[in-house]
Amino acid sequence: MTDRMMTLAAIEQLCLRALVAAGAREDNAAAVARSTMLAERDGIRSHGLLYVPIYAEHIRCGKVDGMARPVVSQPRPGAVVVDAATGFAHPAIDAGWSGFIAAARENGVAAMTVFNSYNCGVLGHHAERIAEAGLLGLCTTHAPASIAPPGGRVPVIGTNPFALGVPDDAGGAALILDQSASVVAKSEILLRSREGRPIEPGWAIDASGAPTTDPAAALKGSMLPAGGHKGFGAGLLVEILASCLSGAALSKDASPFSGTLGGPPKTGQCFIAFDPSAFSEGFAHRVSNLVEAIAAQDGARLPGGRRQAARRRTEREGVSVDAALIERIESPYR
Amino acid sequence: MTDRMMTLAAIEQLCLRALVAAGAREDNAAAVARSTMLAERDGIRSHGLLYVPIYAEHIRCGKVDGMARPVVSQPRPGAVVVDAATGFAHPAIDAGWSGFIAAARENGVAAMTVFNSYNCGVLGHHAERIAEAGLLGLCTTHAPASIAPPGGRVPVIGTNPFALGVPDDAGGAALILDQSASVVAKSEILLRSREGRPIEPGWAIDASGAPTTDPAAALKGSMLPAGGHKGFGAGLLVEILASCLSGAALSKDASPFSGTLGGPPKTGQCFIAFDPSAFSEGFAHRVSNLVEAIAAQDGARLPGGRRQAARRRTEREGVSVDAALIERIESPYR
Repeated sequence: MTDRMMTLAAIEQLCLRALVAAGAREDNAAAVARSTMLAERDGIRSHGLLYVPIYAEHIRCGKVDGMARPVVSQPRPGAVVVDAATGFAHPAIDAGWSGFIAAARENGVAAMTVFNSYNCGVLGHHAERIAEAGLLGLCTTHAPASIAPPGGRVPVIGTNPFALGVPDDAGGAALILDQSASVVAKSEILLRSREGRPIEPGWAIDASGAPTTDPAAALKGSMLPAGGHKGFGAGLLVEILASCLSGAALSKDASPFSGTLGGPPKTGQCFIAFDPSAFSEGFAHRVSNLVEAIAAQDGARLPGGRRQAARRRTEREGVSVDAALIERIESPYR
Repeated sequence: MTDRMMTLAAIEQLCLRALVAAGAREDNAAAVARSTMLAERDGIRSHGLLYVPIYAEHIRCGKVDGMARPVVSQPRPGAVVVDAATGFAHPAIDAGWSGFIAAARENGVAAMTVFNSYNCGVLGHHAERIAEAGLLGLCTTHAPASIAPPGGRVPVIGTNPFALGVPDDAGGAALILDQSASVVAKSEILLRSREGRPIEPGWAIDASGAPTTDPAAALKGSMLPAGGHKGFGAGLLVEILASCLSGAALSKDASPFSGTLGGPPKTGQCFIAFDPSAFSEGFAHRVSNLVEAIAAQDGARLPGGRRQAARRRTEREGVSVDAALIERIESPYR
């Protein structure tokens, strides 16, 4: 099959139509469509259009309630709590957003937790949105278990990423960190599995605990944490915030983000926002000083640099999309 | 020289007397002495009595103001800010503590930043103290630069640990995480350097960027982050919170924690506390379920297990201390 060049707006529309056709309410579909477009914009294909047939399938099988209405409460001045009602994560996050941002400004810091939730797409985009509000954002989300504790064999936590969004003083982000606890994102292994390509050594072990480069065996075994027990520790931090604090299912008890079995995964998110001006003066200056000290070194790469480069390219040129994938997204409702 | 068995109380007294003799006010010395005792109790010798001659030297040379009075403010309901006034970190943290804990309970979440500060000892002990208040604690502290960005050679961040203190439902901690961004703590390399032992391969590179097992060459070069760019990312997260947000000096501009040169390091801390009951019910139950899923696996070790074992032993038997070290601590003021 050939590829087709699509604008970012066309990608968003393609996703929106597919999710509405699958049974999502328009506002719910719109939130997910925007996230899908942002992933394609930044070159993160694993969270882009490739995921749309899965989203649609999950609406149809009831893993996600496309008609869900999230319920927001604010039990304390700095605590915003959202019940995603087994719908998509994105509209739940949107529902709590304005209260969350206002609470961070008023209190200096606030946290928003989401439970009965689902995969929230590219975590760094939520962190970036906090940064664009002039706040420092620390975001966490967990996922069905895929990483065993060091020394063990049974996965207990997901690839559990955290993302940091650091505001500049011009309404944008000076720095975005977005990293999973595993050596690579699970979506990368799923992508290789779909494409029939082997994974790299050191990414995963099989169910017996032996090293493997077979993506299928890896998906039945355990992903390896980056930096051994320290990567596992970073994943545990995320588990405690995004699952235990939010009141979500534990990663080990959550149904998979792929396939149609197990009902809603009921995972969670925890986002924290700090107003830098509540704590000190000159925050943006210190950040740019730090960023410059990294950028000025020959060979050193700033976190997020690859996404920035993809963004500049796709905003100008659009995205080249596999025509077979477009067909797979459109065919169920044509 | 021989070793001498000391009770934990005797260790605390030994440290207290040495710091007061060096010129610290009694309350400032007491806060540091307690931290030193806790480090020895948990078997973390690098932050125990071994550090006391350095603390005393730093009081004498002015790297730390032993007479400092920390200044606490609360610019927003959830933001507690402490100027350590170039004194020890511990009394500054103590000064802000009750306001910080009360703010977390009232707002659901609160953050305390400390600037014009110094090495705060074992970070996990602060996280544990938050957990003992029934709150979930996330603590960060940064340190003079010792880790270069991946691909670069010039250190820009310190070993920058984070610690997580997770409360149980009985006034204690269900789990304590405490991990630096580097493969090993810098104190471990300093310890090997003092003892004349080589470091392990993969811990550090020398100033030219080449791998080294010589602790002296490592101290002039760069520590390696655990998990490559992901360890560096974890260290950046800590840098943004403990330095940029708090208003401390950047790690790359801070004077060393060792030696007598450069004046006060003016580093910082950022501690965050969440009241789990503000966000969900059943937090302690989910945590114990998670901990059990790790502990039940043959060969898997829970984070913090080694410290717990040391604690049980030293509380019963005391600590065996090198008599030469005791002499080095006592001799300046005898």
